[in-house]
Amino acid sequence: MPDKAILLLSGGLDSATCGAIAKSRGFALYAMSFRYGQRHAVELDAARRVAGFLGVTEHRIVDIDLRSFGHSALTTDAPVPKDRDFGAASGIPATYVPARNTIFLSYAVGWAEVLDCRDIFIGVNAVDYSGYPDCRSEYISAFERMANLATRAGAEGNKLTLHAPLIQMTKAEIIRAGVGLGVEYGITHSCYDPDARGRACGACDSCAIRRRGFAKAGVPDPTLYTEGRQ
Amino acid sequence: MPDKAILLLSGGLDSATCGAIAKSRGFALYAMSFRYGQRHAVELDAARRVAGFLGVTEHRIVDIDLRSFGHSALTTDAPVPKDRDFGAASGIPATYVPARNTIFLSYAVGWAEVLDCRDIFIGVNAVDYSGYPDCRSEYISAFERMANLATRAGAEGNKLTLHAPLIQMTKAEIIRAGVGLGVEYGITHSCYDPDARGRACGACDSCAIRRRGFAKAGVPDPTLYTEGRQ
Repeated sequence: MPDKAILLLSGGLDSATCGAIAKSRGFALYAMSFRYGQRHAVELDAARRVAGFLGVTEHRIVDIDLRSFGHSALTTDAPVPKDRDFGAASGIPATYVPARNTIFLSYAVGWAEVLDCRDIFIGVNAVDYSGYPDCRSEYISAFERMANLATRAGAEGNKLTLHAPLIQMTKAEIIRAGVGLGVEYGITHSCYDPDARGRACGACDSCAIRRRGFAKAGVPDPTLYTEGRQ
Repeated sequence: MPDKAILLLSGGLDSATCGAIAKSRGFALYAMSFRYGQRHAVELDAARRVAGFLGVTEHRIVDIDLRSFGHSALTTDAPVPKDRDFGAASGIPATYVPARNTIFLSYAVGWAEVLDCRDIFIGVNAVDYSGYPDCRSEYISAFERMANLATRAGAEGNKLTLHAPLIQMTKAEIIRAGVGLGVEYGITHSCYDPDARGRACGACDSCAIRRRGFAKAGVPDPTLYTEGRQ
């Protein structure tokens, strides 16, 4: 029996690559996605496609209500920033959702405990990471330490490991790694502000980082964008 | 304007006392409770009563689904253990809910960030704590450290403090402190297995710890129990 691992799966480029890496290491994958009031709920369709592509053992979509917090351009009707200049010092952007990764990882810890699973994979990366504080390696280490004190498994010496294999990779490196593992990026979704048919806008931070990543990787971008520089 | 503080409010004896302590320190309270599939959902009625008693500025009840994890006697139809011998080495009991405090605190961190609030109160205690790993001070410290790396406020140097004022107190000390602050314990609810009218069973771990606490504090227990040693 292969070891089990939880995979936090958004349906984007990073989590798809992270899942392919976890699979290449021999884990049986238990994918977890969240319906959290995001305006780009179409990403859950992508999560289902990626889960199927990866051949996960189980895929759970958990309903959580982050909209009640308001505050982020991803969960309110505030405009998604477009065509930002990443060269300028930009701080934490308006699309930041308070405590999002912390909440997602907390659910993963709970499910890991129920499954008796000691490995959790999350596809955060700190290089082209768009300025979110909860995508840094200090955060990942601190979460892992907390989780091992929080749980029955940790308390009994059965250590939980939080894997963030992309954390030091650029987007181009991530894409090249994924291509090497056969990831079909056409089934993934990155855009924060898709149109009614789910097509990527091409201009939000997430689209901009994705497009630049494919260009730098020298890999054709399979995404259909509705606007912006093709 | 008083400083704001988030209060995790279950409606039990500990969170009511914790709230009274936070209030005595001058904070404006923002109470957060969770409907998480617990069989003792009557505790949410108690949470509303306690929120009213404390005069909180706002009380949010967040719906989250921990039942999908199964596993705990508090969220499944498994029997709640009764009349356990606390003198025996007992380990982590069947009523433990995987990652519960971690998930609750993660939501609190998100709401704190939205409210621009730097203080969170949680009424865990490690003395008469029933064997849950996520009630220990090492856990609380590790969570605080993680939260300060996770959030925009922490990243910008605006430190979040996680207060657990009861953590080193016995149940009797908690009750005496609460009585000193005027807490009306008759409006709180502790039982894991109440009857259809919401009355405490008197025999589960939570009732047993509560009863013993009142007895040791020399304070009359206002709780109406349906069975057990009165």
